[in-house]
Amino acid sequence: MTATDSASQAMPLRGLLASEPQIAAAGAPMFAEAVRSQAASVTELDWRPPIDGTGPALATVMADARREAANALAFERMSTAGSELVDVRPASEMLGLTRGTFLHAGPPLTWDRASGPMRGALIGAMLFEGMADTAQEAERELASGAITLEPCHHHRGVGPMAGVVSPSMWVFELRDPTHGNTSWCSLNEGLGKVLRYGAYEQSVIDRLGWMSAVLGPALQQAVRATGPIDVKGIVAQMLQMGDEGHNRNRAGTLMWLRDVLPALTNVGIPSDQLSEVVRFIGSNDHFALNLTMPTAKLAGMAAEGIPGSTVVVTMARNGTDFGIRTAGTGDAWFTGPANTPEGLFLGSYGPEDANPDIGDSAITETAGFGGFAMATAPAIVKLVGGDVQFALAATRSMYEITTGEHPVWQVPILEFRGVPVGIDVAKVCRTGLLPQINTGMAGAQAGVGQVGAGLVNPPVECFTGAIEALAAEVG
Amino acid sequence: MTATDSASQAMPLRGLLASEPQIAAAGAPMFAEAVRSQAASVTELDWRPPIDGTGPALATVMADARREAANALAFERMSTAGSELVDVRPASEMLGLTRGTFLHAGPPLTWDRASGPMRGALIGAMLFEGMADTAQEAERELASGAITLEPCHHHRGVGPMAGVVSPSMWVFELRDPTHGNTSWCSLNEGLGKVLRYGAYEQSVIDRLGWMSAVLGPALQQAVRATGPIDVKGIVAQMLQMGDEGHNRNRAGTLMWLRDVLPALTNVGIPSDQLSEVVRFIGSNDHFALNLTMPTAKLAGMAAEGIPGSTVVVTMARNGTDFGIRTAGTGDAWFTGPANTPEGLFLGSYGPEDANPDIGDSAITETAGFGGFAMATAPAIVKLVGGDVQFALAATRSMYEITTGEHPVWQVPILEFRGVPVGIDVAKVCRTGLLPQINTGMAGAQAGVGQVGAGLVNPPVECFTGAIEALAAEVG
Repeated sequence: MTATDSASQAMPLRGLLASEPQIAAAGAPMFAEAVRSQAASVTELDWRPPIDGTGPALATVMADARREAANALAFERMSTAGSELVDVRPASEMLGLTRGTFLHAGPPLTWDRASGPMRGALIGAMLFEGMADTAQEAERELASGAITLEPCHHHRGVGPMAGVVSPSMWVFELRDPTHGNTSWCSLNEGLGKVLRYGAYEQSVIDRLGWMSAVLGPALQQAVRATGPIDVKGIVAQMLQMGDEGHNRNRAGTLMWLRDVLPALTNVGIPSDQLSEVVRFIGSNDHFALNLTMPTAKLAGMAAEGIPGSTVVVTMARNGTDFGIRTAGTGDAWFTGPANTPEGLFLGSYGPEDANPDIGDSAITETAGFGGFAMATAPAIVKLVGGDVQFALAATRSMYEITTGEHPVWQVPILEFRGVPVGIDVAKVCRTGLLPQINTGMAGAQAGVGQVGAGLVNPPVECFTGAIEALAAEVG
Repeated sequence: MTATDSASQAMPLRGLLASEPQIAAAGAPMFAEAVRSQAASVTELDWRPPIDGTGPALATVMADARREAANALAFERMSTAGSELVDVRPASEMLGLTRGTFLHAGPPLTWDRASGPMRGALIGAMLFEGMADTAQEAERELASGAITLEPCHHHRGVGPMAGVVSPSMWVFELRDPTHGNTSWCSLNEGLGKVLRYGAYEQSVIDRLGWMSAVLGPALQQAVRATGPIDVKGIVAQMLQMGDEGHNRNRAGTLMWLRDVLPALTNVGIPSDQLSEVVRFIGSNDHFALNLTMPTAKLAGMAAEGIPGSTVVVTMARNGTDFGIRTAGTGDAWFTGPANTPEGLFLGSYGPEDANPDIGDSAITETAGFGGFAMATAPAIVKLVGGDVQFALAATRSMYEITTGEHPVWQVPILEFRGVPVGIDVAKVCRTGLLPQINTGMAGAQAGVGQVGAGLVNPPVECFTGAIEALAAEVG
C-alpha cells in the first residue's frame, strides 16, 4: 500500500475528481440519459426492487451455502438430459390407466373448480370412452365425483391445454438415456375444434377415434421400426428454423415426419390410410409440440430432488390455477390463480372470450425454450402479439432469472448464445421479473375451442409460496 | 420573403450560428465520431465513390427520363411473378433436348475454356447417356467439338453448380400464372460426390440412373395428382424458417415434401421404392434449391425486355465467367472472370482446392433472396463463414443497390421488411457495392465434388460492361 492510498483511506473523498469519474446509474433510465446527454459515459444497472414481502425468506435462501452448487447441479442435469422417442402406445397400456380415471393438465383440480375448457375436454373424454351418451349425462357423472381426476405430471407426463388423457388415447413414449427417465405426451389433434381446447362435438370424438384406430398403430409400427428418434436434436434444429417449440412447431413437425417416413411408408397399411396419416400430420403445424413438451419434461425430471436447489422443475396450469414445483421442495405444488393471456384473437373472438391460462405446455419455458426462446422465432409475434424487439427482449430478460445457458439449444440471432435454462425462484423474487410464457388461448365456455394466442406470466403467488417453502427447508 | 431572408441571401453566411447547427458527415466514419463525441447530433451519409471509369455512362443512364418508370415496372413484374410446380418430366420431352446437346450453367462456354468441375460434369453426362464408356473417351469426344453446349438460361431454365442437363435427366417444370412464363430446373442429387460439383464416378452415374428410373416418374405422378404447388408461398414460409433459399433449403425441402406426400404415398409404386424416394428427399436438405431457383428465374423472366430499365434479370456463372443480363439490354451477356469464393471448407480441403464461382444459383440473389436474405437465416454463417452481424449487414446493404422491397417475401428479424429486389446496375456503379452471393464451392479438379461453401461477389466487369451498353441504348 502506498502513502497516497493510505491518505485516501483516511479521507475517502480526497482525490475523487482527480481522475475521470466512473458513473453508474440504477433504476429509472432518466438518470443515465441525463449523464449521457452531457457526453459522459455511464454504466446502467438494470436494478428492480424484489417482490413485496419476500425479503426475509429471500435473505435466508440466498445465504444458504448449498444453493450455488445445488443449482449448478440442477442446470447440469437439465441441460444434459436427452430425449428419444422410443414408442407410441395406448395410455391404458403405458400408464396402466383404467376406466374411470382421467388425467389432466396442471396442478391437482376438482370438477367444481374446473374452468369451461377443462370441463369441455372431460365431457369429451366421457363421450369418447363411451361412458356417457350425451354431454348432459357426462356432466352429471363428472359432477357426482364418480370419476377420478389426476394431473398428468403425477404420472411423469404432460398434456397441452386441458391435457385430458383417457385410457383409450394413444401417447408418445420418450426416454432420457442420460438419466434413465421416461416421459410421455398425448398425440396432437390439430387446431380449432379439438378436445384439448374444450370442444367435444361429434367431429372431435370421431377424430379421436381415428387417431386411436389408425394413426396410433401406424406410428407405433413406424417408430418401432425406425428405432429411437433423437428429439433433443430436433429441438436444436427447430431453434435454428424459426420454431421456439411452444407455439411454433412447424419445422419440428416436418423434421420428425421426415425421420419416421422411410419406415412409415413401409409398414404395410393400405395406401389410402397411409395417405391420410401423412396428410393429417403434415397439415398440423403443432404435431411436434407433443414431442417438445415431454422433451422439456425429461429435462425438468432430471433436476428433481436436489436439496437446496431453487430451480423450477415444473410450471403447469389447469385453467384455474398456475402451479410450480422446484428441485429443492419435492412434490409440493406452489400455486396461484392463473392469469388470462393477452394477445391476438381468431375471427370475431375478443378478450372477454378467453379462459385463464391452461395446459402443461409451460414445461417448454421451464426447460428454456417456448417464450424463453422467442428471439429465435420472430415470426411468432404475428400469432401471439408484440413486435420483434419484444421477442428479442423477452429472451434477453430471461437470462436474468435463470441459472445457465444451454450448450446445445442455441439462438443464432444472439450469436448462437444458448437458451436461458433453469428458472431460479430466488432470482425471480429478487428481480420481480416473471417467466415469459407464450400460449394458445382456449374459449372460456366449454365446447368453444381455440379463440386466440398470446402472452402470459405466472402469478406471483407461485414464487412467493416457493421461496417461503425453500426458506423453511434451509437448515 | 422577409427582409432578413433577403439579407441572408445577399450574405449567405450571416446567421449561420444563430440557431442549432444541423451537421451531416459523409465518407470516413471518423468525421461523424468526432462530432458525436462532443455531444452534438450528426446525420451520417453512407457515401462511396462510384466504380472507376463509369462516370460518363452513369451520368447518361441516370439522366434517362425512362429509367425511373422502367425500373418501377421491372420491380412490379418481378415481385408479382408467381411460381407453381406443375409437372416433372424428362428434359428430352420438356425441352426437346436431343442426343448430342448438353445444357450448362452460366453464360455461353466452350470446352477449351471450361473449368474442372464443368468438365467433370460433362464427362459424367456422356457416361450417363451411354455416349462414352470411359472418362478418357468422353473427354476426347467433348474436346473434338462433336457435342453442342448451350446455357440453361438460353432454354428458360436453370441448373445449380455445373448445371449440366442431358436429355435423359428429369426436370421440374414451373409456371408463373401472373405473366404466363414457364421455367424448369434439374432434380437435386444431394451433397458430396455429385455430378453438379464435377464428380462422375460410378456411384454418381448410378444415382442419376435411379433418379430417372424411379424418382422422376414417382414425382411426376405425385405432382400431377396434387395439382399446381405454390412454390412462391413456400419461399415466403422458408424466409420465416431460417432458410435463405440458396444454401439453406431445409424447411423448403420439408414443406414441399409435405405438400406432395398425400399423393406420393398413393401413386401405387412398391412400398420399398416409395420408402427409398422419401428417404432420398428427406435426407437432402438442398432438394428444394431446385425449386427456389426456377422460382427466381420466373421473377427475372417477368422483367425481361423493358426499354430503359437498368434492373438485372439474370446473374449466372459457368465456373470460368460470371455473366449478367439486364431488363433494358435484351439477350446480351455482360461478363467478367468469375471470382473464387471465400468461406469454410469440408474436411482437409483448403482455399487452393476451390474452383472459381460456378452455377445458375445466383438467380436466387437476382430475385432478392439467397445472399440478399441472409439476415433471416443467421445459422448460415456456420456454413459459409462470417458472423451474425455480417448476415444482418449483408441484407441491409443490398437495399442500397436494389429497386424495391418484396411485398410477400419478408424478413421477420427486420420487422418483416421485404427482401431487397431488383439489382439496379446504375446503383451498383454509383456506390461500388457489389451484390452479395453465398454459394457452394466445387473442387477445381474434375471428379472431386464439393469442397466447401462461402461468400462471393460478381466481378466488377459485369456492371461496367452493362452500364456502357445501357448508356449506348439511351436516346
